[in-house]
Amino acid sequence: MNWPSHGANPQYIYETMNILMPDEIIDLSANINPLGPPKILKENWPSFYDSIVEYPDPAANRLRETVAKKEDLDKEMIMIGNGGAELISLLGRMFAEKKVLIIQPTFSEYEKACQINGCEVIHHSLDENWQLRIEHLPIEDIDAIFLCNPNNPTGMSSPYEQMLALSELCKERDIYLIIDEAFYDFCEDYQSLIPIVGNFANVIMIRSMTKMFAIPGLRLGYLLADEKVIQKLANFQSHWSVNAVAMLAGELCLREVDFVQETRTYIKKEREKLFAFFNLEGFIVSPSKTDFYLLKDPNIKDQLPLFEFLLRRGIVPRHTMNFPGIEGQWLRFAIKSSNENNQLLEALKEWKK
Amino acid sequence: MNWPSHGANPQYIYETMNILMPDEIIDLSANINPLGPPKILKENWPSFYDSIVEYPDPAANRLRETVAKKEDLDKEMIMIGNGGAELISLLGRMFAEKKVLIIQPTFSEYEKACQINGCEVIHHSLDENWQLRIEHLPIEDIDAIFLCNPNNPTGMSSPYEQMLALSELCKERDIYLIIDEAFYDFCEDYQSLIPIVGNFANVIMIRSMTKMFAIPGLRLGYLLADEKVIQKLANFQSHWSVNAVAMLAGELCLREVDFVQETRTYIKKEREKLFAFFNLEGFIVSPSKTDFYLLKDPNIKDQLPLFEFLLRRGIVPRHTMNFPGIEGQWLRFAIKSSNENNQLLEALKEWKK
Repeated sequence: MNWPSHGANPQYIYETMNILMPDEIIDLSANINPLGPPKILKENWPSFYDSIVEYPDPAANRLRETVAKKEDLDKEMIMIGNGGAELISLLGRMFAEKKVLIIQPTFSEYEKACQINGCEVIHHSLDENWQLRIEHLPIEDIDAIFLCNPNNPTGMSSPYEQMLALSELCKERDIYLIIDEAFYDFCEDYQSLIPIVGNFANVIMIRSMTKMFAIPGLRLGYLLADEKVIQKLANFQSHWSVNAVAMLAGELCLREVDFVQETRTYIKKEREKLFAFFNLEGFIVSPSKTDFYLLKDPNIKDQLPLFEFLLRRGIVPRHTMNFPGIEGQWLRFAIKSSNENNQLLEALKEWKK
Repeated sequence: MNWPSHGANPQYIYETMNILMPDEIIDLSANINPLGPPKILKENWPSFYDSIVEYPDPAANRLRETVAKKEDLDKEMIMIGNGGAELISLLGRMFAEKKVLIIQPTFSEYEKACQINGCEVIHHSLDENWQLRIEHLPIEDIDAIFLCNPNNPTGMSSPYEQMLALSELCKERDIYLIIDEAFYDFCEDYQSLIPIVGNFANVIMIRSMTKMFAIPGLRLGYLLADEKVIQKLANFQSHWSVNAVAMLAGELCLREVDFVQETRTYIKKEREKLFAFFNLEGFIVSPSKTDFYLLKDPNIKDQLPLFEFLLRRGIVPRHTMNFPGIEGQWLRFAIKSSNENNQLLEALKEWKK
């Protein structure tokens, strides 16, 4: 089967599975904030209209200044992207023909960006508990490492101390370390390396704004790195790549500190409810700290029957066919609204009957 | 001086020239429809809000179907881009390390996209009347030709018969011919090759939607070519590259046939008024058929004094410093609203005093 390479856009998974898509579906395949965008976006939406008639600032100066202030970094260390996906794609070009290590299972865009740029891609699997073991990393001759933290699809994080140790090791060995923090802000106690990224000319951090602020349709992300890295990447970026509406939305979103905290609390409560049920009913899950998790029914190896069962009921998990090491043996679910999560629980009860 | 590479974003040209930007300016540096976006966009703007919370369709199927219907072509021959600039950038990658001919003076993004991809770039100048002379083209060993029609910055078009002859020559010689029609729809009698592009696996057409429909802030363009070309380019495009708002706007805009005709009539009338004045006052202009033109005061070779004179009065022309062959010897002006054009005429009268 020709599996869609990502979650979201559920029509494609129904097509692949040759199942008629119900009129009402619950899409748990995309890890987007269930609270929706912060209210301030809808309030300001009419005023965004005026921005469509002017070219966006290709240097995104105002948004870069806002990010710089938030992260307490120099503006020259910041690049704005047309979603995290564009930033990953630009990194692929930066490391064209180089030897790149990808820590698996993880987001498939890293490999795609590397392959299209003729990189030699080495895969390294997390251990059997999906933990990173630095001492086992095959870093000989490696030019760059892609790592997602918290990791997609497990939702598990490597601790700060380990990320710091890895950054130092990579600095010694002249390896670029790319840390994609697309889902960091859904975690309760996540500590990022960003405050000290200025000490590491070899560390590149990626942030998405589309997940927490529920604006995947607008496309927005940013990247933090040494000024020289930013300049290299900017050369590859097409002119006016980030649209004006996304930039205006981004500036408003970055002020929404309470909204982010409210989201975290909501996600945690829902996650605890879900995990208690899974524990009781004998489903196995990844010990996620963010807004999605892996799940399996241990009574079947390949989870395709459960996948199909849920799709027919209008509940859309994310298949794991293109996550190396777990192909089809797990399903990934986003944590959505309480009501949507409850409907998942109902469906899983029915499955267990 | 470090000249901005494009028109629009006038703050950058004021910075470069070290002139304080007046509060009120008339930006004639970006060739955007003076009538603004079609009314239907503002009417539907509130409903676009819902699209921001979902991932855009990465295959842009609905918009591709709309374009396919409009152009009477197969959907598989169509690619949607995050503005024409992204499509040019993707073409640069497709021709990486190849030998590319650029017909000058023209839009600077072609060269930029080629340079960043290690192409060998050959420049060929239009003749002294800015006409294309096919028999003079140095096509030996060339892999691809970039040509803008109507041409930016002159606003002049090569006729259909000549484009057809060039397409056939390129087909014989196994050369890709890229025709950028970003401004075709402002012309009265422009005949495009698109209806017969299916006969040419080597012809690639680019269309912008940001100029006619005055939505540069949203970013939207499309490309028409053989299915194999589309597949190659799609590999290089980053996932979800075109935002959801742009796609919805695009579908509405493509229905606006009367709006396009109204724009054409308006531009023609304004162009005739402007050109009559220039003729009378002794300014020289390119015989443009579209919504911008080149102008010079023949009493000075370098037009920098006139450029500065206008900037100080809040009128922003486009410098021509990065158009090979005309560097600084002309200024480019967009045709804007009647009122704005009249203010340009007033300023030029004052200049002549």
